[in-house]
Amino acid sequence: MKLMVIGCGGVATVAIHKCCENPIFTEILIASRTKSKCDALAEKLRSRTKAVLTTAVVDADSIDSLCRLMKEFKPHTVLNVALPYQDLTIMDACLECGANYVDTANYEAEDTDDPEWRAVYEKRCEEKGFTAYFDYSWQWAYNDKFKAAGLTALLGTGFDPGVTSVYAAYAQKHYFDEIHYIDILDCNGGDHGYPFATNFNPEINLREVSANGSYWEDGHWVETKPMEIKREYNFDGVGMKDMYLLHHEEIESLAKNIPNVKRIRFFMTFGQSYLDHMRCLQNVGMLGTTPVKFEGREIVPIKFLKALLPDPASLGPRTVGKTNIGCIFRGIKDGKERSIYIYNVCDHQECYKETGAQAVSYTTGVPAMIGTAMVAGGTWKGAGVFNVEEFDPDPYMDALNKYGLPWQVDENPVLVD
Amino acid sequence: MKLMVIGCGGVATVAIHKCCENPIFTEILIASRTKSKCDALAEKLRSRTKAVLTTAVVDADSIDSLCRLMKEFKPHTVLNVALPYQDLTIMDACLECGANYVDTANYEAEDTDDPEWRAVYEKRCEEKGFTAYFDYSWQWAYNDKFKAAGLTALLGTGFDPGVTSVYAAYAQKHYFDEIHYIDILDCNGGDHGYPFATNFNPEINLREVSANGSYWEDGHWVETKPMEIKREYNFDGVGMKDMYLLHHEEIESLAKNIPNVKRIRFFMTFGQSYLDHMRCLQNVGMLGTTPVKFEGREIVPIKFLKALLPDPASLGPRTVGKTNIGCIFRGIKDGKERSIYIYNVCDHQECYKETGAQAVSYTTGVPAMIGTAMVAGGTWKGAGVFNVEEFDPDPYMDALNKYGLPWQVDENPVLVD
Repeated sequence: MKLMVIGCGGVATVAIHKCCENPIFTEILIASRTKSKCDALAEKLRSRTKAVLTTAVVDADSIDSLCRLMKEFKPHTVLNVALPYQDLTIMDACLECGANYVDTANYEAEDTDDPEWRAVYEKRCEEKGFTAYFDYSWQWAYNDKFKAAGLTALLGTGFDPGVTSVYAAYAQKHYFDEIHYIDILDCNGGDHGYPFATNFNPEINLREVSANGSYWEDGHWVETKPMEIKREYNFDGVGMKDMYLLHHEEIESLAKNIPNVKRIRFFMTFGQSYLDHMRCLQNVGMLGTTPVKFEGREIVPIKFLKALLPDPASLGPRTVGKTNIGCIFRGIKDGKERSIYIYNVCDHQECYKETGAQAVSYTTGVPAMIGTAMVAGGTWKGAGVFNVEEFDPDPYMDALNKYGLPWQVDENPVLVD
Repeated sequence: MKLMVIGCGGVATVAIHKCCENPIFTEILIASRTKSKCDALAEKLRSRTKAVLTTAVVDADSIDSLCRLMKEFKPHTVLNVALPYQDLTIMDACLECGANYVDTANYEAEDTDDPEWRAVYEKRCEEKGFTAYFDYSWQWAYNDKFKAAGLTALLGTGFDPGVTSVYAAYAQKHYFDEIHYIDILDCNGGDHGYPFATNFNPEINLREVSANGSYWEDGHWVETKPMEIKREYNFDGVGMKDMYLLHHEEIESLAKNIPNVKRIRFFMTFGQSYLDHMRCLQNVGMLGTTPVKFEGREIVPIKFLKALLPDPASLGPRTVGKTNIGCIFRGIKDGKERSIYIYNVCDHQECYKETGAQAVSYTTGVPAMIGTAMVAGGTWKGAGVFNVEEFDPDPYMDALNKYGLPWQVDENPVLVD
């Protein structure tokens, strides 16, 4: 089966590593803005796989550039592990060229000051009641087109969103008659030894921390102030951590796809030192995205900060510790209350040894491969746009165990109040 | 009496305001790098004074530039309220042109990487046992030259150093047979309403916070790690504050000039928020003074930070609250133990209303004028280089009351442990 992967960053690196282990992928084209990165990765992997690896340069913002490549390579499926800004151009190209589409994160506008985008956004804020810059509406709107084309688009098959939603489908199928409460807990217990560094673009990190939180309750969104809701939780493999309620995209799809759910919340851990640095940097204007006049030239503060911070790619070899991501479900089975916790614990150093990327990339890249394999192998079939929880979770759950993200079920978890 | 003032920043502005109120000064030449600032100040003050005000541009790094001006104006005394980097060139020019010299802060090298300066510095660190970048040795070395020329050089007549040393001389004269312990407490209880801003050059602020502390005890220096020694103190007019032991220049001169002193310490208050910001900014490299490559150009991080922070000059109108600076003395009088606390409380808003500068500039600028008046009027006489505590403190203490920095004596103070 011919797979085209767009992107060659940390997540893409892991996904491609894992695709090379899965015999379903016989030809893989790695395409990104920087061909030399694709070449280096292909070079490294060729000796370890039977798949034929090729590389190409592509401008994922351009449907033309994408189609030129796709018409030549004729992929069965395209895995988009580029930027969320490029989801729509890649979906358009897939429709035009007859390829299935898979991604890990929903569409986000690159220019949130664009008045046309802003009008749609503000209408949605008012109607839906949450103010995050991203949501599924843009991609769900492609459903009819994919249906008409007889193609599958699978959205959000990273860890969160992705595995967390598959966990929900799995809990629904095997453990509950009705799921009433879902708490998604994302804990990174990794330590890179720097007083401050970000795992990815600090601008996106900042957005998470400075944006309003929100959760789904009784059929509507409830918004909170940034970092307003804080809880402590003792994570298996990591220990006690502070975590904060954030908006997160899978809440939107789970609210739609899990019948009778009463509340869905998402919590992420942040260390106090990380938050202190973010706050201080924001206070002095170092997180600003608007250019500032300096010595006769315009400088964007957050870009200058990025130049000072350790390169996220350099964190891999020095990050130790584990991640623990999972979901606590509460609901009813055979008339009785029940709660279970499904989660995965992943070790940064083991991920690095295996793929050259640490657990933050690993936990996203492995499920990206698995979702792609579900579509490519026809295990998950259907014409239209889908979220992962809409399909049978069992083969996906098996693949998680097989490809490096084994999960466990705790049938008596500590709940989050 | 003809006075030449070099500098036109916040401290200079206050000092010149106050000189205009003191009839001893009949002609005042205001000289700085930027003549327009001098002109604006002179313009503002002309209607309020009988003194003749003139202005000029001067390069205080250049003895030639200084002498050209001094030979024309023929000042009796030169008040240096420029930068501490320029103390030596201005002293040289005074010697060449036959003027008395007054300043508020001791000499500091601008380029601390200069190997010639560094050799002297490292020798001194070893011999004396403290590692601050500044000390009195450079200026005390001019003693013979000023003596031979029959001129007076008065060093360090700001608040601290300056008033704090006059307090010591006053305590010695009126309250003690022997002073054994001196604690100098510098508290700024001002609030400018910004999460973070510096009252002056953030680079100099940073040096204070990140440098080793040190104090004088039993005839030698004891060094501490940066901010290692912390105390709480309840300041009159301000309230309870955290304060930290720092190295400070008057410790060096008081150790020489107060006989039998056993220990001299200096404490300065810093708010937790200020320290947190400093630490976070330092951690990410924003306080770096070495250029960083960014978008094809070299940028010095701390200079870029300075461009983002509020202009120190803009803090005046918005700073509320008070400063409280003073000294606690312990010793023996008539065979009995005794302790007294001499201090001044100064209100930021009142200073601003009077001079357009807040209390940090005011408390330095007023004593600058008073010390200059002591030399200019012949109240303090002598050929050579002197620190303020070497003269009779009484007329200076009277002038403090008269010119806006009234002091009080607490004969039963809470001590610092």
